Amino acid sequence: MAFITLTTDFGTKDHFVGAVKGAIYSELEDAKIVDITHEISPFNITETAYILKNSYKSFPKGTIHIIGVDSELSEENKHIALELDNHFFVCPDNGLISMIASEIKPTKIVEINIHDRIESSFPVLDVFVQVACFIARGGNLTVIGKEIKAFKKIIEIQPKVNQLENQIIGGVVYIDNYGNVITNINEKMFQEVGKGRDFVISAKKHTFTKIFSKYNEVATNKAYNNQQYEGHKLALFNSAKFLEIAIYRSNLDTVGGANSLLGLEYRDTITIDFINESKKDFTILT
Amino acid sequence: MAFITLTTDFGTKDHFVGAVKGAIYSELEDAKIVDITHEISPFNITETAYILKNSYKSFPKGTIHIIGVDSELSEENKHIALELDNHFFVCPDNGLISMIASEIKPTKIVEINIHDRIESSFPVLDVFVQVACFIARGGNLTVIGKEIKAFKKIIEIQPKVNQLENQIIGGVVYIDNYGNVITNINEKMFQEVGKGRDFVISAKKHTFTKIFSKYNEVATNKAYNNQQYEGHKLALFNSAKFLEIAIYRSNLDTVGGANSLLGLEYRDTITIDFINESKKDFTILT
Amino acid sequence: MAFITLTTDFGTKDHFVGAVKGAIYSELEDAKIVDITHEISPFNITETAYILKNSYKSFPKGTIHIIGVDSELSEENKHIALELDNHFFVCPDNGLISMIASEIKPTKIVEINIHDRIESSFPVLDVFVQVACFIARGGNLTVIGKEIKAFKKIIEIQPKVNQLENQIIGGVVYIDNYGNVITNINEKMFQEVGKGRDFVISAKKHTFTKIFSKYNEVATNKAYNNQQYEGHKLALFNSAKFLEIAIYRSNLDTVGGANSLLGLEYRDTITIDFINESKKDFTILT
Repeated sequence: MAFITLTTDFGTKDHFVGAVKGAIYSELEDAKIVDITHEISPFNITETAYILKNSYKSFPKGTIHIIGVDSELSEENKHIALELDNHFFVCPDNGLISMIASEIKPTKIVEINIHDRIESSFPVLDVFVQVACFIARGGNLTVIGKEIKAFKKIIEIQPKVNQLENQIIGGVVYIDNYGNVITNINEKMFQEVGKGRDFVISAKKHTFTKIFSKYNEVATNKAYNNQQYEGHKLALFNSAKFLEIAIYRSNLDTVGGANSLLGLEYRDTITIDFINESKKDFTILT
Repeated sequence: MAFITLTTDFGTKDHFVGAVKGAIYSELEDAKIVDITHEISPFNITETAYILKNSYKSFPKGTIHIIGVDSELSEENKHIALELDNHFFVCPDNGLISMIASEIKPTKIVEINIHDRIESSFPVLDVFVQVACFIARGGNLTVIGKEIKAFKKIIEIQPKVNQLENQIIGGVVYIDNYGNVITNINEKMFQEVGKGRDFVISAKKHTFTKIFSKYNEVATNKAYNNQQYEGHKLALFNSAKFLEIAIYRSNLDTVGGANSLLGLEYRDTITIDFINESKKDFTILT
Repeated sequence: MAFITLTTDFGTKDHFVGAVKGAIYSELEDAKIVDITHEISPFNITETAYILKNSYKSFPKGTIHIIGVDSELSEENKHIALELDNHFFVCPDNGLISMIASEIKPTKIVEINIHDRIESSFPVLDVFVQVACFIARGGNLTVIGKEIKAFKKIIEIQPKVNQLENQIIGGVVYIDNYGNVITNINEKMFQEVGKGRDFVISAKKHTFTKIFSKYNEVATNKAYNNQQYEGHKLALFNSAKFLEIAIYRSNLDTVGGANSLLGLEYRDTITIDFINESKKDFTILT
């Protein structure tokens, strides 16, 4: 059975998503089509990269992921298809694959070249669906494109480490449904650079010296129930293993979220300063 | 074939829903996954209870309902799985099952105890999916949890009747897509307490002495067309059999809805006063 | 296999959509149910007509389309089922089929008459699902309704041509996820009336003398990259072949869209004036 996922900035009101699904079913009656999301902020590649990285892996091997964000064909925005980690991706070559491909190398990348047959202002419908169905039927990537070695990278997705190796400079790449603020700093980098040292996380005027692994670890005093901790701020490694600044039990319509309460926005800088062993004067919670 | 539904407060932008669906398909290729909703207000258990009660029944017997609202595991928030009315529910024990289970008793309830194998800040993905797939394959609840007798109840979901039995005091439990205001008073209770007496429904400063069974019953004068009744307020028993305060042909972006026009909000009190036979001085419409 | 699509104004928070899907699966376990959209503005028939026209065709022949917008039964709002272009539609007779049926005549239309058995304030669930499942099992339309010859038309959906045949007067029928403003003027009418003449499109105080066929045709100067054209306004025939006023790379939350930046709204007038050959004094881009 063919699994095909959709990740787009189409929204769910317009006819775009319905038209794409209809076209897939017309070619592959038995396909299972799964929406990852259609709520990407228009043209936002960083958001797309983050969502894709954290969802694709849970699908069965062989799943084909169609990504329709900033996908109009142009000289600087080619269409590509690639195989990576036993999954297939059909997407524009605009950097959205960077976050996944920074850790796992693609087995094969092709620049799609079936456009001479198709003139289109809706390439997801007219090109990507065809390519995805071709792959689903077992077709070889090299039939629908010419092999290339590199894909476009986006820089903002990677945090930096200073020369002294006592500071990580990252940024906010995503704000989720609860207003939680997610950075591009993952747990692996934190462990490798930090080497167990104490640290201070700075996000605008807010600082954190502990990183939790679950939200309700903030509710430490058993004399109170969890709801009484509503509104407390915390830093944690989220289920995707990225550093997240959160408000406990947040709700954007009532108590607010980390974004609104702490004044944090997409692309804001988040730094982690590690403290030398000698200056260590408080205990770490791990 | 296994039917699995999802009811969460995840929203549809983040990767959470996609990741959960991928994980289910990876275990059960043939599953049919249906979204009930992912738009529950964060952590709102009453909303969840209302939506669940009004949707689960239409699914085939044997359907497994995963509910991910306020589901992080803690001492006060255990995970449970239960069988009720030939449906299965996998959810936190935070009261969201109250509204269904107040009418139909669960056949079996277990407290899920597979957590010793799983440390997770995303229990819907890591725990609920496993439990649901286990049930879908015909597994017995007692294998993944220890049987318990009671589940947590939430009080606000039940309306009260006064001692004289001439007043029902209910509240607003849900506001729908059209701004209609839905109370926790159902038609059965209204009939049993009211016994055919006249009545006055009070919702803040607004009163109603009729309850309709269809929206367009308000458009009684055939000299006008239905659209001319746009904006009229009415009380009716909705398709879920709950008392609802509505605006005829409401649209929150244009004419407004019962919530905005009548100033009614989630948790507001709604009372029904029944009038003694002797004082009866007007005719009831039923 | 039966394909059933859903187009409604139910929103995705309430229990309505889930209840409808459950009911279909309870009747037809193998059905493939596809959401076209549930985000239609409440009771908006023009929007429904536009979305339907641009999505139904991509589905396999024989697909059954359930449309739940302004569907409560009344004297002036009957329920109909029809076959058109090898697709089936189950919907209220309120004009929403006009846009499709203006080009392709229905093969058969029936007024559904199974309501004597059903009293309902939720006809999509109680009536349309039954009708759709009946059709999916191969049932004949005349069993569930009596044949009629005409369906209700809505006028605003058709643009007008003046007597001199040098002006098309159309209007805004839809605003999409990117804020693009879509008119009811299609490419075919433009070609037939314009006959290759020069033209001026007027949308409030804005004018356009070119119509593009792809968004990034606006980015003509290769010395700049496409992103530097962000915010440019343009007119194009969109993928649905309707005249659209767009902002290049628009985003309603940041740069704005054609609606917000140009002050264009649903139902605004858009005119195209064609210029006589003799007065032609500039070149057309086609």
